[in-house]
Amino acid sequence: MYDHIYLHKFTTDLFMRIGCSRSDAEAVASVLVAAELRGHSSHGMLRIKDYYELWKAGRANVKPDVKVVHETPSTAVVDGGGGFMSMKLAIEKASVTGTGWVATRNSNHFGIAGYYAMMALEHDMVGICVTNGNPLVVPTWSISRYLGTNPLAVAIPALDEPPFVADFATTPIARGKLAVAEKKGEKVPLGYVQDADGNPSDDPTILRRGGGMLTLGGDQVHGSHKGYCMAAVIDIFSSLFSGANFGPFVPPSVAYLPVPETQVGEGTGHFFGAMRVDAFRPADEFKASMDEWIKTFRNATPSKGESRVLIPGDPEREAEEINSRSGIKLVPAVIDDLKTIAGELGIKFG
Amino acid sequence: MYDHIYLHKFTTDLFMRIGCSRSDAEAVASVLVAAELRGHSSHGMLRIKDYYELWKAGRANVKPDVKVVHETPSTAVVDGGGGFMSMKLAIEKASVTGTGWVATRNSNHFGIAGYYAMMALEHDMVGICVTNGNPLVVPTWSISRYLGTNPLAVAIPALDEPPFVADFATTPIARGKLAVAEKKGEKVPLGYVQDADGNPSDDPTILRRGGGMLTLGGDQVHGSHKGYCMAAVIDIFSSLFSGANFGPFVPPSVAYLPVPETQVGEGTGHFFGAMRVDAFRPADEFKASMDEWIKTFRNATPSKGESRVLIPGDPEREAEEINSRSGIKLVPAVIDDLKTIAGELGIKFG
Repeated sequence: MYDHIYLHKFTTDLFMRIGCSRSDAEAVASVLVAAELRGHSSHGMLRIKDYYELWKAGRANVKPDVKVVHETPSTAVVDGGGGFMSMKLAIEKASVTGTGWVATRNSNHFGIAGYYAMMALEHDMVGICVTNGNPLVVPTWSISRYLGTNPLAVAIPALDEPPFVADFATTPIARGKLAVAEKKGEKVPLGYVQDADGNPSDDPTILRRGGGMLTLGGDQVHGSHKGYCMAAVIDIFSSLFSGANFGPFVPPSVAYLPVPETQVGEGTGHFFGAMRVDAFRPADEFKASMDEWIKTFRNATPSKGESRVLIPGDPEREAEEINSRSGIKLVPAVIDDLKTIAGELGIKFG
Repeated sequence: MYDHIYLHKFTTDLFMRIGCSRSDAEAVASVLVAAELRGHSSHGMLRIKDYYELWKAGRANVKPDVKVVHETPSTAVVDGGGGFMSMKLAIEKASVTGTGWVATRNSNHFGIAGYYAMMALEHDMVGICVTNGNPLVVPTWSISRYLGTNPLAVAIPALDEPPFVADFATTPIARGKLAVAEKKGEKVPLGYVQDADGNPSDDPTILRRGGGMLTLGGDQVHGSHKGYCMAAVIDIFSSLFSGANFGPFVPPSVAYLPVPETQVGEGTGHFFGAMRVDAFRPADEFKASMDEWIKTFRNATPSKGESRVLIPGDPEREAEEINSRSGIKLVPAVIDDLKTIAGELGIKFG
């Protein structure tokens, strides 16, 4: 078990070694450790190796020349920055104009979308963050892998209750669940993937043979075209407002996948929003209503066999409480990778 | 078959007879006829009877005192208005500040969300509209019908291509599909509804015996908790920003369902957004990129047995082309209702 403060310090040191400024390195460390704390290890320390390999391949810019290339009172386009600066700018604009909306290009894989959305909470703002990602997902009716798992994160402040934090992909499952099933030699339920012809499949390895992941809904009978609409909206917001790459042209976030030969925009994009709740109602009134919303849904009657009804953000917050006390468990392969990378950079892990 | 111009005139006359101003009556007629043209007859002329019954029951205010009760440069709260005025205000704010966001309370059932989102298109803006609705849908893990089918509509302008218009409920199916299955004496696929204990059900009549509709995803294995997140975010946006009723407290849009005894807010709410595309990039550049996005996805490879890949908005636009030429078909029950109502109001239908 690793203490989260230790992991944060180690990760900061590591990214400074490859040339990041202290504040950039601390930002990356905060996002990665937050993912571990919140129980999303697929977006945690595991990613350091991917980032490191991208850097070694000359595909990650550690000294980005961050520029605001266009703005209005409530909007901005940021070139070259990661999520932190963009979300901060959205919050600044919201504090003046009521809401702030920032589109980013020439960014990189940015960790968990929820992290940025949650940055708004302490300012009594609603935070929103979307991004596209590696194209692995097919539009309904198609076999072309043109979409990412395209997450949406929305964080909403409450008064005495913990905040509402929804952070979810627009596919039934995250990519990592296929890898887990494969390792266990198990099949997956129908509705997650299809084969190279577009037939239903229960084979978690099918993506290696031309298969694709399905959008939320699974098949058209169950509304996969609505999941496709969601994923498409997120793809467009993540790319076209800033002029980044959309859909099939999104640069991969891992070094072992080549950059697509055709690029229709500039690098990887995201989209961030912040809305001051008192731009609509007095903040305490809004937040008290949010408490009432949360209590109402928490007190909904559970289905037979279920013990409780969850509010978006509950599982992650509970994981965070446990993991910040008891420490973070890393799998042996991640520990080995971190030791190797640390060795190459002349620092020490563990 | 009825000509859409005739239906618009008849509907305007009808709503003026019950006391609406000409501009309000024309607005309602435009939304209802647009639903018919776009192939969503569940939100078309069929609804006139519901509105009429609500008016007879004293539950629809035909002379609303529309007020902007709070505003900032990019936001406003509207009391008493329908969708038209709120969306117009969002567009006005966007034209000055880059984006405009309007929350509405004390409204009524407002027809298809897509209509309002599409109002932004001619201004080279992205339009967004969400609303909650009659509580029929259960949160994951629960048997409490606390959510509506809560649609999201997003309209995005293109240059030479027709616009992208996503307008979809956050459930696998619309409520009307259950009624259709019931009339045909058919079962429905698993994943649409559950019984009063929360067990899977294929019975389209189960809502009358304590059952509930499921969120997009269907069951938790297929990501229904993500559909629940979406529906919850839309519920909160539709109610808490303006102080309207949320979830289980949303006033029914039909007169045969009683208003809930407890009200936690003021009437029915919606949420509207408009984003000037040139608040981010030159409009022609954005719209040319949007053409490229649309062409890319339209040219995706169809699955075996499929003839083409659709872009959100394609089916509705094609229906509109046919229906505005050939006329709109109404079912006999709707024709009878309209004749009866017309008779009661001293006008004539058909």
